[in-house]
This record gives sequence, structure tokens and C-alpha cells, in this order.
Amino acid sequence: MNTPHRRRGAQGTPRVRDLPTRIDATGTRRETDALGTVEVPADRYWGARTERALVHLAIGDDRMPKAVYHAYGYVKKAAALVNGREGRLAGWQADLIAHVADEVISGALDDHFPLYVWQAGSGTQTNANVNEVISNRAIQLVGGVLGSKDPVHPDDHVNLGQSANDTFPTAMHIAAVRILHDPLLPQVSLLQEAIAAKSRAWYDVVKTGRTHLQDAVPLSVGQEWSGYAAQLSDALERLRATLPDLYQLAIGGTAVGTGLGAPEGFGPAVAREVAGATGHPFKVAPNSFAAQSGADTMVAASAGLRGLAVPLMKIADDLRWLASGPRSGLGELTLPANEPGSSSMPGKVNPTQCEAMMMVCIQVLSDDSAVAHAGTRGNFQLNAARPLVISDFLHSARILADACEKLREYCVEGIELNRERIDEHLARSLTLVTALAPKIGHDKAGEIAHKAAAEGTTLREAAIASGHISAEDFDRIVDPRKMARLRDG
Amino acid sequence: MNTPHRRRGAQGTPRVRDLPTRIDATGTRRETDALGTVEVPADRYWGARTERALVHLAIGDDRMPKAVYHAYGYVKKAAALVNGREGRLAGWQADLIAHVADEVISGALDDHFPLYVWQAGSGTQTNANVNEVISNRAIQLVGGVLGSKDPVHPDDHVNLGQSANDTFPTAMHIAAVRILHDPLLPQVSLLQEAIAAKSRAWYDVVKTGRTHLQDAVPLSVGQEWSGYAAQLSDALERLRATLPDLYQLAIGGTAVGTGLGAPEGFGPAVAREVAGATGHPFKVAPNSFAAQSGADTMVAASAGLRGLAVPLMKIADDLRWLASGPRSGLGELTLPANEPGSSSMPGKVNPTQCEAMMMVCIQVLSDDSAVAHAGTRGNFQLNAARPLVISDFLHSARILADACEKLREYCVEGIELNRERIDEHLARSLTLVTALAPKIGHDKAGEIAHKAAAEGTTLREAAIASGHISAEDFDRIVDPRKMARLRDG
Amino acid sequence: MNTPHRRRGAQGTPRVRDLPTRIDATGTRRETDALGTVEVPADRYWGARTERALVHLAIGDDRMPKAVYHAYGYVKKAAALVNGREGRLAGWQADLIAHVADEVISGALDDHFPLYVWQAGSGTQTNANVNEVISNRAIQLVGGVLGSKDPVHPDDHVNLGQSANDTFPTAMHIAAVRILHDPLLPQVSLLQEAIAAKSRAWYDVVKTGRTHLQDAVPLSVGQEWSGYAAQLSDALERLRATLPDLYQLAIGGTAVGTGLGAPEGFGPAVAREVAGATGHPFKVAPNSFAAQSGADTMVAASAGLRGLAVPLMKIADDLRWLASGPRSGLGELTLPANEPGSSSMPGKVNPTQCEAMMMVCIQVLSDDSAVAHAGTRGNFQLNAARPLVISDFLHSARILADACEKLREYCVEGIELNRERIDEHLARSLTLVTALAPKIGHDKAGEIAHKAAAEGTTLREAAIASGHISAEDFDRIVDPRKMARLRDG
Amino acid sequence: MNTPHRRRGAQGTPRVRDLPTRIDATGTRRETDALGTVEVPADRYWGARTERALVHLAIGDDRMPKAVYHAYGYVKKAAALVNGREGRLAGWQADLIAHVADEVISGALDDHFPLYVWQAGSGTQTNANVNEVISNRAIQLVGGVLGSKDPVHPDDHVNLGQSANDTFPTAMHIAAVRILHDPLLPQVSLLQEAIAAKSRAWYDVVKTGRTHLQDAVPLSVGQEWSGYAAQLSDALERLRATLPDLYQLAIGGTAVGTGLGAPEGFGPAVAREVAGATGHPFKVAPNSFAAQSGADTMVAASAGLRGLAVPLMKIADDLRWLASGPRSGLGELTLPANEPGSSSMPGKVNPTQCEAMMMVCIQVLSDDSAVAHAGTRGNFQLNAARPLVISDFLHSARILADACEKLREYCVEGIELNRERIDEHLARSLTLVTALAPKIGHDKAGEIAHKAAAEGTTLREAAIASGHISAEDFDRIVDPRKMARLRDG
Repeated sequence: MNTPHRRRGAQGTPRVRDLPTRIDATGTRRETDALGTVEVPADRYWGARTERALVHLAIGDDRMPKAVYHAYGYVKKAAALVNGREGRLAGWQADLIAHVADEVISGALDDHFPLYVWQAGSGTQTNANVNEVISNRAIQLVGGVLGSKDPVHPDDHVNLGQSANDTFPTAMHIAAVRILHDPLLPQVSLLQEAIAAKSRAWYDVVKTGRTHLQDAVPLSVGQEWSGYAAQLSDALERLRATLPDLYQLAIGGTAVGTGLGAPEGFGPAVAREVAGATGHPFKVAPNSFAAQSGADTMVAASAGLRGLAVPLMKIADDLRWLASGPRSGLGELTLPANEPGSSSMPGKVNPTQCEAMMMVCIQVLSDDSAVAHAGTRGNFQLNAARPLVISDFLHSARILADACEKLREYCVEGIELNRERIDEHLARSLTLVTALAPKIGHDKAGEIAHKAAAEGTTLREAAIASGHISAEDFDRIVDPRKMARLRDG
Repeated sequence: MNTPHRRRGAQGTPRVRDLPTRIDATGTRRETDALGTVEVPADRYWGARTERALVHLAIGDDRMPKAVYHAYGYVKKAAALVNGREGRLAGWQADLIAHVADEVISGALDDHFPLYVWQAGSGTQTNANVNEVISNRAIQLVGGVLGSKDPVHPDDHVNLGQSANDTFPTAMHIAAVRILHDPLLPQVSLLQEAIAAKSRAWYDVVKTGRTHLQDAVPLSVGQEWSGYAAQLSDALERLRATLPDLYQLAIGGTAVGTGLGAPEGFGPAVAREVAGATGHPFKVAPNSFAAQSGADTMVAASAGLRGLAVPLMKIADDLRWLASGPRSGLGELTLPANEPGSSSMPGKVNPTQCEAMMMVCIQVLSDDSAVAHAGTRGNFQLNAARPLVISDFLHSARILADACEKLREYCVEGIELNRERIDEHLARSLTLVTALAPKIGHDKAGEIAHKAAAEGTTLREAAIASGHISAEDFDRIVDPRKMARLRDG
Repeated sequence: MNTPHRRRGAQGTPRVRDLPTRIDATGTRRETDALGTVEVPADRYWGARTERALVHLAIGDDRMPKAVYHAYGYVKKAAALVNGREGRLAGWQADLIAHVADEVISGALDDHFPLYVWQAGSGTQTNANVNEVISNRAIQLVGGVLGSKDPVHPDDHVNLGQSANDTFPTAMHIAAVRILHDPLLPQVSLLQEAIAAKSRAWYDVVKTGRTHLQDAVPLSVGQEWSGYAAQLSDALERLRATLPDLYQLAIGGTAVGTGLGAPEGFGPAVAREVAGATGHPFKVAPNSFAAQSGADTMVAASAGLRGLAVPLMKIADDLRWLASGPRSGLGELTLPANEPGSSSMPGKVNPTQCEAMMMVCIQVLSDDSAVAHAGTRGNFQLNAARPLVISDFLHSARILADACEKLREYCVEGIELNRERIDEHLARSLTLVTALAPKIGHDKAGEIAHKAAAEGTTLREAAIASGHISAEDFDRIVDPRKMARLRDG
Repeated sequence: MNTPHRRRGAQGTPRVRDLPTRIDATGTRRETDALGTVEVPADRYWGARTERALVHLAIGDDRMPKAVYHAYGYVKKAAALVNGREGRLAGWQADLIAHVADEVISGALDDHFPLYVWQAGSGTQTNANVNEVISNRAIQLVGGVLGSKDPVHPDDHVNLGQSANDTFPTAMHIAAVRILHDPLLPQVSLLQEAIAAKSRAWYDVVKTGRTHLQDAVPLSVGQEWSGYAAQLSDALERLRATLPDLYQLAIGGTAVGTGLGAPEGFGPAVAREVAGATGHPFKVAPNSFAAQSGADTMVAASAGLRGLAVPLMKIADDLRWLASGPRSGLGELTLPANEPGSSSMPGKVNPTQCEAMMMVCIQVLSDDSAVAHAGTRGNFQLNAARPLVISDFLHSARILADACEKLREYCVEGIELNRERIDEHLARSLTLVTALAPKIGHDKAGEIAHKAAAEGTTLREAAIASGHISAEDFDRIVDPRKMARLRDG
């Protein structure tokens, strides 16, 4: 963490060539680290530490999400620019690292980030992977020898003033913010708007309410859907409220939070650069010890994801029940048929989108539980379960976003009302009797309802037959629209 | 852990009086422990350590379940008898401790076990509480001075050859085994039998099947309920399969599993005594280090409880849906009305028992999750979350047992079929068309179904109208009973 | 839901007597509901519906928390006052109900709320229990006949304009807000302040940092504890941020959210009354369909509780590890000895408070998981797992508050530093070599560290012996205080 | 579900060519299903239903595990052979389907199974994918026209006598059994054996015990590790005990469990074929309604995976703590250095394998929680969260297997004892004083311990200085080996 560029002294600025992000080589190349020499695939930019981790930590097929590497690109670029500006890196070194970091951000180097989620709890191997790839790609661009660490050293230059312990949580926050901004929040908003549109379109359609799955007093379809829309907009608001904490970055704390090895002001400066590059108001976390030893901000953000899954599960469940049937279910909604249900079975549309969404929500709830428990697994100056935290978080955010998109596009937008069934349910509902009580008293109202129940008639038929009320009065009083308190009802 | 009674030498056997389990005193009494003197309520048997824990650990209102103390009674009695038999306690001491331990087992001393769940992870305070209460109650019975620890010392005599670290997991297993044997397994069995009886009674009643909540080919109500019965009997079997591991007791391992302070053969001898007293085949755990540093057996038993909750949730959910309505739901079942739903709303019976069961199941699943995570919280020679484990386990077992009893008594046994609705659903089901395909081909079958769907008729009407099949053939071929493959169909 | 007082017409205002909250009677009393007559204990205020629920829903020993009833007191009082003000109740009826509701709020009627958590998912039985108790207590106060429902009817008067479906979620929010304000937030704040005080007191004490449990570069004890303090203050802030949503009450929506049966403006007026009585800015929820069919606000608040448990677990874990030993552990902290560890084992203090806190946190995490899953269990116009939600929420809040209080009082405030051990760890730490690298280069620095490691010496000894650096330079450069970047270092 | 081959009547047996599993085509091909025509990539075997699902259900990047498809290969092969044997398929059709199914089993067609986990809760799309791919591959092999469904139809032939509703749970069980048998059980066994070998090798090495993280009486390293070994062998046994239930297959139940469309005896015959092909004793589930409407067997098997994760977490945690330091931690174990810790920091080895294992275990616990909740999400004749269940199960099994392999190979096998530190801890432990008590009494023993504590000496020094015991007696009595009760001690 000294200032190695000084040793390079009078060296001129190397020429940076324009080369594709590709190494044209076969076989293996020798790379070294403090433990010795390792053979790595010749067409990969990574070095010895990455290669060791690939061997020692080949667990399952869960790879560190590429979004973490893209986020790391912002960190490395920002750090290089700050280091360059303050003379700790030569200008051309800073620019070169920044240039390669842009390639990292763009995804052009994705194939060179092969590591697994299950690594050191600090994300050490992923930080090393980024440093090595940037080093070798930079070396390639200036015509150097891959693996030589010259003139861009993975530790001395790319990682200058940094540690996995502060950069990994920094990259986590950047990745989390980015996936929230795109695609999660927009996709949920689109779904929310599609639902709100249905709510408006069906504002006037009065239907039987249901509580405890039992027939209840009426409301309108639009009211029912306004509840869905409100649940989602509330959940969106709560999720957005986790952003300000996510904007706080651990950068500058280095190994234990004291910032040893990073110059004064390094963290804030890097955060400002990241803010500029991403367009999000990142800043440095006020207490780096908390930022590095905990993962509380991510746990809170994960609760924000869960906060979406909870109402989405309820909504998807409602939709499939309301569309159940076609003949022996509730049948009030008709879902779009995206796939053959059964060729000879007309009207049978499996609620596949709803079932997919419900499974996604179960998974989000359990991923969130993993994140919370991972959050408790810190000791002293380091939370030691960060890779799980960010991997599960990004996973949940992604499947929620996609499931919202698919539910909207292939289900909600195409849902139609089965008016006939809705009206039939409403007409035969005995709960409408509630409206008669103020007029004829609870006792007579109950008597009518029991009569209708016993004889299998509608309430109207039973009411008129009872002699307690005229047909005109019944129609005037038992007005489901008024009972639903529709605004102009 | 020396053999303190030898110091008592020639002392004669004190007379044991017959006294109610009550201290007639008011105010406070002085009790001592290694840290000094403490005032305790004069009418309580507990001593200084319990009193300190009451102050320092007054967290919430979660008390260590009495079942743990009753189980501890077996441990203390067995240990005393073994110690007495082998001369480490005087015979009368052993008998006296055993006598008081029987009072503990009986629940007569329940009011003297006030401690909270949230204590040391080893259950140390509860072990001390038991030792102190037995000591003072024994002292009372022989006319000694409460708090004097003479002639029955909480540590030197009641706890002789033991430690919280081996007795607490021992008591956990005993308590778990007892609650499984009564009431959990019997109550679930009764529910399973009530369901199986319904399955037999309704074997012949053919109904519309439902998959994805959509109408599907027919099955009988009895078949549907046979599935419920099978799920429960399988879950019961899996839960019973956790018993053999629960029969293995940690006793004899003392503080760290080596048995230091307990004589050779102490553990197995105590386990035999416990087996004799409880009637369950307890024995000593083969590896005391595993038994004391983990809680794996309890985690597995907890999974057995969860294994009940999962199908119970599905069954309770099905019941409330099948009883939904009365007019705008599925309405195939009529639940008993245990409470007024709505006075003027005939036929509206809220599925309260089902909802209660479903909440119980959610709680059992989350308690089980707590138990599993607690199981991971051991270090070195001690699992340090045992009180949570046993408290949550007993809680789940208890609410499951009670919820099964109530669901059976106040719901399942009183459920009746709404035959009219079942028949109506079946008659109008288009899925019966499946039976026509082998006769008239898929295409014509589909044509008929679409015609019925479009015109809102029954399949039979559409089929005959189509001219593809005669009424006689239709009635012969479209036999839901045969489609359901009822045995004598 | 008509205006029943009008039928009472000219009836004079009954005299309200001053009577203790007690019924002096033995045996049973007959109470009625729509299903018929039930015997209830003569000395209880509850009626038929409560008694039925006591029988049918006796599941475990989990009682609906009293805090829910106290919260319900506010609801019933507010509703009565609004109903009275607008002429739907006679003035004396409104005042009488309000008076009894005050008794409910005060806890004076707690013994008359015996119901279990596991009931209808809407909390119907608890609402009925409140209505019945208020009715009979009011009747008693005016010298009426218990069970007569005259002159204060449980449904027609106490429940006027209300339903379990809107009052129960209203009471949930009130109960949640109250427990957050007292005791949870204050107790966590006190713990946070105690930790912050330690952080300030120990700001200057430099110690070895630890990452991955391995020795790392130094920081000060104060810095380490500032991280704890920051984690807690952040968690507090996030929990406080859930309050605004909790201030939104479902009241006014009645059975399905449309407000049928409640007059225009009823919900907002009741919310204002509750706000006035409690001192918290309650208002009516903007979308009653969402408020009644979901439990999202409670799920979010529960995540706030979890957000406390996560850092508390880490802090408690750190404390017990830092106090481990006394000789074969880290031994940097000395915890207060609240209880005898082992009489003959000086310095051995079991971290009981930490273990208790850790178990509490595990429980909070799993209760929170139950709340989230319960949140998904709504259908149509009703979430059907509300009793679980509020019970688990209040449970978590309570045990967190108490555990924070005990941890503070009996652990944190009495913690002392073992300066000798801290200094010893620091002195022998090889990580200080980091400070030498800028001066003598990485290679020589590494050489010195390896020499110290191989020979078991301190870094200082090895450095001076190496000849690469003088003792003066070493002492000047290797300044842990500077390495920790203490402000005035 | 009729026997379509009869319609093919006199058709000769087509010649089956030997072709690579590859379609040499570019662009798209038209495929049809009941909803119409779809363009699919010309070089893929899948058909219209798969293509639709790819569009409608593109959620995240979670693909249905290939292991499910391989398991499906066994199902389709067995069904074809049974159908062929009983004349429902022509012999050559059956053989051809079986041949292609073998290719599925081998993984040769993996690239043609692109679907996502998040689909219909029944796994319908995956079943369709398998049917379509087998159909088209079979068509290719006999020189037919891809997409023509002739002469091997996806529904009429490949799916003959089957439904997603019985084949998907069948494939789940086959896939689960296979991953348990390889690699999970063997990899855990190898780890268990490696630990047991260490236990034996270090049987004699006496060390300080630790409870509550506090110094406790001694045990040997071998004893400590025997606990680890016992925990793992117990967990293995419990996991193996879930196999018999997994051997029970849902096959034969078809759509709702009645077996409509499958001939008598079909299920058992298919199960026998699968048993023969896999070498595992599969048979048909006794109650197909339970097998198809629940996922209880998988939930129980998942608990078996969790049962491994719980002790693995404890073991990994112990290892990293015992290796903590090198200087300011416990330092009793030396982990192999698989990667550079810090170049200049000798002896600092991050416990990366332990941290990776701990994260894996957290994930397994939460995946297991998802599986359990998914198990509750069935209604009527179908569990509707199966894809999540099998995906999470296989994920957990895989990462557990790999993590065990890596922990064994790169950590456990290379662990060495730091004898010096172990001895130092033991020598200075005050807990050895326990051994003196029987000889000199508790009081004097305590006095010695306090003296040693106060003066910072060893117990031996303090004991001899106290005059209460001679050096010879001390060395004879205070024998940690005897205290640990080593067998020949």
C-alpha cells in the first residue's frame, strides 16, 4: 500500500492499444502469487489467486453474480481515478485501469470472472479476481507480458488503498442499488399500474365480497383490485426507502475499518466518483466499523424484497382462485390462455403465471431468511457471509422483477371478467339481506334469508314472497352498488 | 463431586415427614451461593441461584416449560437411586431425593420453577433451580433449616455426578419423548382415524377432481380423503421414527462429555432407571461429545413435527375451500357451526378451526426453523441454545396436538357432504368428455365439450345434441364412477 | 348496525355506579348468542361467544396478548364517542362504553380476556370477547342484568359501525405502536447509549483487529464499540421508520373494506379519537381493502424487529468471544459475574446474558419468518392469520426489549477491559509489520515477520535483531495508535 | 390416452439410424400444439409447448436441473417398455422411445431442456419438454419430419398412460435418490471418515475443554473430533432413512391419482422397470392421492439435508475458531494454506473453506425452509410448488456434497495440531484444580486456583506454593489424561 508508481519514476507513458477483450492463446500460462506458481488457461485474464480459488472452492454451480463484478468495475475505476488524481498512481496508470474497469462494467470481461459464490465470507477471491483481470487486461493493452504484473500490478495498483473488506460491501451496495433501479422497481411499477388500470376499468362492477372464503357483503371488482394496487405501491415505497442506506458505501475503511493504507479522504472521494459514474447519490458510510462488520443495510433491503413478495403471493393466489373452474370453481376471472391446457377441455386455463409467481415468492421469502441469518454471522471486524448475502439478494430481485413482468404481460393485462358469473354470484348472495335490516329489522331480514337458503331461491324471490317488502322497495333498497359505497352509487 | 455423605458418617437416618408441598411462611428467607447471600421469597423452595436468575434473566414471559422440570424429576430421581445404590449417597438421602423428585414429576412443585426460557444456553439455571428446590423440599421433609443445604445439598447431593451440560439435554429428550407419546401421537392418530373413517364412509361419492384449481377428471370423496389419511399416517410414521434417537440420553458425560466427576457406568445406570420409571427404552448416548455439543437429535425430531404441519396445513386449507360459499364458493362440504357466523346469514360458517390450524402450522414451521438454527449455535463442548430448542419443540408439539384434537372434534367429525352441490359440479363438468374420446375420437369429443361450453349446457346435453353418440351410450360410457376407478365400479 | 338507541327512546339516563371490576358470584350464568344458550362462569364478564371459543379453540397455552385487548380498549372507546357524538348511541351509552373501555385500557379487566391466539384468522373471537366484556361490565355499572345485553348490547352498541375485520387490524397497529414506543425503542436506545459510552471511554485503547477470526491490523476498542453503537442506532432508525405506516388504521372499512354499516367519516373520526387518547398520530388507512386483506405493514414492522436482532446477535456473539477464557480464550473483556460460574474456578464467568440474547435473537428471526408467511395467507377481502401476526410481533418486541435491558444492566454496563491481555495481544501481533513496509519495503518487512513467527518473538525484537531498523525508528513507526488512525494519534 | 399405434396398423418397423444428437439446421422450424403454430429454433428438438414456456416463463436464470430430465429419461423409458410389452405401443415404438430416453439419461440431450424452474407448479412444461424432445429425436432417428409428431407423438406415445401430475413427482424422487447416492452420501462419508481418522490419530492429545467459550475440564482432541464424527454419522444415518419413502413413486396415478388413462398395473410395472434400470428399489406409492397432492416425502428428505447442515455448521465454526490467531486467537489448529493470506503476515491463514461451508449451510437451511413451505402449497389433487421443491433440494444436495469434498480435501485432511499452544493452554488452565478437590477439599482447591489467578501463575506453581500438596502428589493427581478419561489413562 505504498506508492509504487514512484519506483517507476521517469518511465514514459505506454501506448494503449485498441484490442478486443480476448486473448488469442491456447494451453496454459504461468501466474504467480505469494504461494508460488500456478498454471492458468492461456486465454483467460485471471491470475494465480483466481485459479486457486477455482480449484479449492468449486462448490455447486452458483457463480458470483456478474452484477457484482460490474459493480466492482465502478469501484476500481473510481479508486484508480482518485489515486491518479492524488499522485499515487501515474496518470496513465489511472486512466488505463479506469479504461479496463469500463470494460468490466460493460460486461465485456464477464467470461473472466468464473468464481463461485461459496468462497471466503469477505468476498476476498472475487476482489482478487477483479484485480487480476484488470491487471492482465491492462498489461495486454500496453503490450506487456501477461502475468508479469507490470506495469499494472493487481495489488499495488488496482487494489491500491483498498481491501476486499471494504470494496466487497461497496460493490454489494452498488449492485443492489442498480438492480433495484433496473429492472426491479420499474417492473413492479408496471405491474402495479396494470393492476391499477384494471381497478379503474372495473370500478363499477359489483361482486360478492368474501371473507374467510365465505360469501360476504358486496364490493366492486375495482375496489378489490384497488387493494392489490395499494399493496404494491406501498411495498414499492418501502423498498425505495431502503435506497438511502444502500447509497452509503464502506469504501475507505480498508481491512478493519480504520482506513489504514488508504489516504485521508480516499473513501469519500471514491464514493463521489462512483456517484458520478452511476448517477446514484452514493457517499461514504458514516461508520466504517459498522459497515464492514455487519450486513444490516442489506438485511433491511432484503426485507424490502420480501415486502414485495408477501402481497404478490396474495395477489397471485387470489387471481388463480378467482379464475378457478371453469365450471366447478369461482370462475369470476378469465385468464389468458398462454399454453394448451387440455386440448379437449374448453375453458380450462391453468394459472401457470400465478403458480410461477407463488413459487418465486416462496423462494424470495426463504432467500431473505438466508440473508438475515447471514447477517448475524459476523465476528469482530468482518461479516463473514457476504457472498451469500449479495447472491441471494440479487437472485431474489431478479426473479421478482421477471416474475412481475411475466405476470403482467401474460396474465394481468389479458384478464377478463366473467360478468355472467360475477352477476350470478351476486344475485344469489344471501349477504345482501344486510341491506334490508335497517328497513324491516334484523329478525325479518334473517327470516327472509333463511327462507331463501331453505328453498334455494334468490333473496329477492324470498323477500317478496315473505310479504315483508315490495318488489319496488327491495330493488330500491337492496342495491349492491350502494352497499359497495361506490362513489357515484 | 466427591462423596460427601461419608463426611456425614454415623449420622442416623432422619425421619421423613408427610408434609404438603407448601412452605407456610411469609416475607423472605436468606439463601446463599458462591457469590454470597440472596433474599428469596420465604414460601418458595428455590435458592440463591434461582433467585439471581429471576432477576438477571427476566426476559419476556416465556417460562421454561414445566414438562422440562418433570423430565428433570426423572433424572434427579434416577441419579439419586444410582448414587445411593453405589454408596455415594446414604440410602436415606437417595430415597429422600427420589421421593421429592417424584413430587417434581407429579407437578406438585411446579410453582417453584419460575425461570425463563432465556437463560444460559446450557440450561444451567434450570438445573440449579431443580437442585435447589429438591434440596430445600428434602430439608423441609426431615425438619431441617431451609437454605442450610443440610442434610441434602443441591450440588453435593442432588447434582452428584451430574452437570447441567449432561442433565439438561437428558431432560430435553425425556420431555420430548413424553410429549410425543402423550398427547401428540395419540391426538394425531385420532384425527387420522377420523379422516380415514370419513374416507370409508364417502368412498362411493364421486366428485369433480381439481388440479391447478381447475376442474379435472373425477375421483371420489373417499379417495380424496384417503390421501389426507395417508399423508397423516406417513407423517406419524416419520415422527415415530425419531424416537429411537430421542431415547439416547447424554447423562454421564458431565461437564464436557468425558464424564469427569461421574463414576464409571453412571450414565448407563441412570438411563436404565429412567427407562424403568418412564416405561420408555432410554439408554445412554453412544458418543457423549456429540450429545452435548450438538442438538441434532432434537433438530431431527423437530423436523418430524414439521412433517405433521405440512400436510395438516394442506388438509385444513382444502377443507375450508371445499366448504367455501355457501353460495359463491365451492360448497361441497358443510362444516359444523360451532359459533354464530352471522345471525342473519344462514349457511355462512366461518372455517375457524381450519384457520386456527393453519396458523398453528405456520408457527410450527417457524419454531422448527428456530430449532434448526439453534442447533447450529454450538461451540466446542456445548450447544448454547438448548433452552430455545426444547421450549420451541414442546410448544410446537403441544399446539399441534391440541389443534388436531380440536380440528377433529369440532370440525372433521361433524363435516357433512353437500351432495347436491357435489353432483351438480360433477354433472356440469366438461372433463367427463375424456371418457368419450376412446369411443368417438378426440376431435369429436373436443367438439362436444366446446359446444357445451359455448352454450352453457351439460356435456350430456351437448353430446346427444351433437348426434355423435346416443343417450344410452353416453350414460354407459360417461360413468364418473368408472372414471374414478372405484374398486367395484 | 342500525341506530338501536332510538328504540330506547325516552329512557332516562341510568346512574353509573362506582364498582370494583369484579363480579361477586359463583357458579355459572347463562349467556346467549345466535346459536343458543351457554353457561359461563358467573364471576366473568364474558358472554356466550367467548365461552364457545374457549371450548372450541383451547389450543396450547398461547393467549392473545393483553396488549391487544388494551389496544382494543382505545378502539371501542373512540368508536363509542364518535357514535355518541353523532347520535347513533345515546350520550350516556357512549360515555358508559368509553368508561369501561378505559378500564380495559388500564388492564383492570385483563382476567376477563382468556382467549387463545389460535382462533379465527380475523381475530373475530377476540373482538367478540371485548364486546361482551364491555357490555356486561357496563350493564353491571348501571345495575342491569348480566347477559341481558341491555342497556348496552355487545353487537348493537359496543361494536356499532365496526367489524372484527377492521377493528382487529386497527387494534394490532395500536398495540404495535405502543410496544415500540414503550418499552422497545427506549430500551434499545439505552443499550445503544451504554455501548456508545463504552466506545467513548475506550476510544484510546488500541487493540488487535480481527478479520476471519485472524489477527489483523489494529483498531481501538472504542472504534470497535462505535461500530456496535452505529449498528444499533441505524437499526433503531429503521424501526422508527415503520411507525408512519403503523399509524394508519383500518377502522371504518367494516366487513370487507367498503365501510358498509359505518357512517360516512366514521373511520377518520375514530382514528382521530385514538390519536388523541394515545398521543400517537393515528389516522385512517388510505385504502381499506389493502389494509384488511393484507398484513403488509405488520410484516414491514416485523422486519424492523429483525433488523434489531441481527446486529444484537453479532454484538452478543462478539462480547462472549472477547470475554472467552479466562486463560485459554481471547480474554480481552471481563464480564460482570452475576451468578456463580464455578465456585473453585476463578475468573470463569459464563456469558449468560449474551447467550440469552442470542437465543432471543434466533427466536425473533423465526417469529419474523412466521409473520411474513402469515402475511401471505390472505384471500380476497381478509388476511386470515392476523392473531399469529400480532402475537408473534408483540412477543418479539417484548423479549427484545427485556433482553436489551438485561444485557445492558447486567452485562454491558459492567464490562471491564482486560488491558493486560489487550496489550499483550497487540504487542505480539505480527500484523503491525504492515507499518514497516513503506519504510523498509515489503520484502524486508515480510522477512522480519517470518523471523518473529519462526522464533516466537515479538515483532519489535525480530525487527531490531534484523538490523533493518533501529529500535527508535521501530517505536516511532510502528505506532498502533497511528495505525488505528485515532483522531489525535 | 387410447392406444394410438393400432391406427398405424400394418406399418412396417422403421429403420433406426445412428445419428449424433444434433440437428444440422439453422433458422427456425414450425411446431404446433393445440393453440396453434410456433417457430422454434431449427437446431433444437423441442416443440411448441416448450417454446411457449420459454417465452412466457423466462424468469431469472434458474433452469430446471438437468438431473430432473435425466430422471425423466428413466420414467419415459420405463413407460415405453411397459406400454410396448402390453401392446399399447408397437414394439419398435417402445424400443425407439427407450433408446432416446437412454440418450436423455446420458445427458446427450441436455441442451434441449432449456426451461426455467418457475413454471406451472406441477412441472407440466418440463414434462412437455421431455415428450417433445423424445418425439422429435425419435422422428429424426427414423428419418421422419421434425414437428410432424409422426411416427412418435409426444402425447399419444411418449406420454402414453402418464400425466405431468404423476410423472413429475416420480422424476423428482428418482432425481433425489440418485443425488443422495451419488455424490452426497459418499462425499459426506468421506468427510466423516477423514474426521474419524483425525480423531483416532489425536486420541491421546489432551487439551482444555471449553463450554460457554470458557475454559473447562480437559478432554482429548480425539474425543472432541469423535463428537464431530458421531454427529456426521448420525446425520448420514438419518438421511439414509429418508430413502425408503423416496423409493415410492407416484407413477400410475395420472391426472388426479385415480389412474384414469393408465391401464391396470401400469404404475407398478413402470416402477419395476425404473428399479431395474437404476438399481434402486423403486416401487409404486401406496396412495397416489397423497403422492400427488403432497410433497411430504421430499419435505422429509429435505430435513435430512438440513440434518447434515446443522452439524457441519458447528464443525466448520469450531475449526475456524480453533485455528484463530495465529497469535491473538486460540491457535490450537493449523489449517492448510490454500491461498495467500497476506504475503507479509506469516501464519495468517484465513479459514476460507470453513466460511464457504458455513454459508453453504445457511443456504441449505433456507432452501429447506422453502421446500417445507412449498409442501404446504397444495390444493385438492395437486401440490403446486413442485419445481421449487426439487430445484432447491437438488441445489442443497449438490452444494453440500461439494462443500464436504472441498472441506475434506483442502482443509480437514491437512489440519495439523499446534501442540505447543494446546499444551500451553492446558498447563495454565485453572480448571485442572477440579482434580485436587477430592484430595484436599473444595476450599483449599479453590484457594489455590484463586492464588494462581491472582498471581498469573500456573496451577501447579500455585498449588506447590500453597503448601497444601506436594509436587509429586500434584503431578500424580492432576493428570489431564486421567481427567479426560482416556481409555488407557
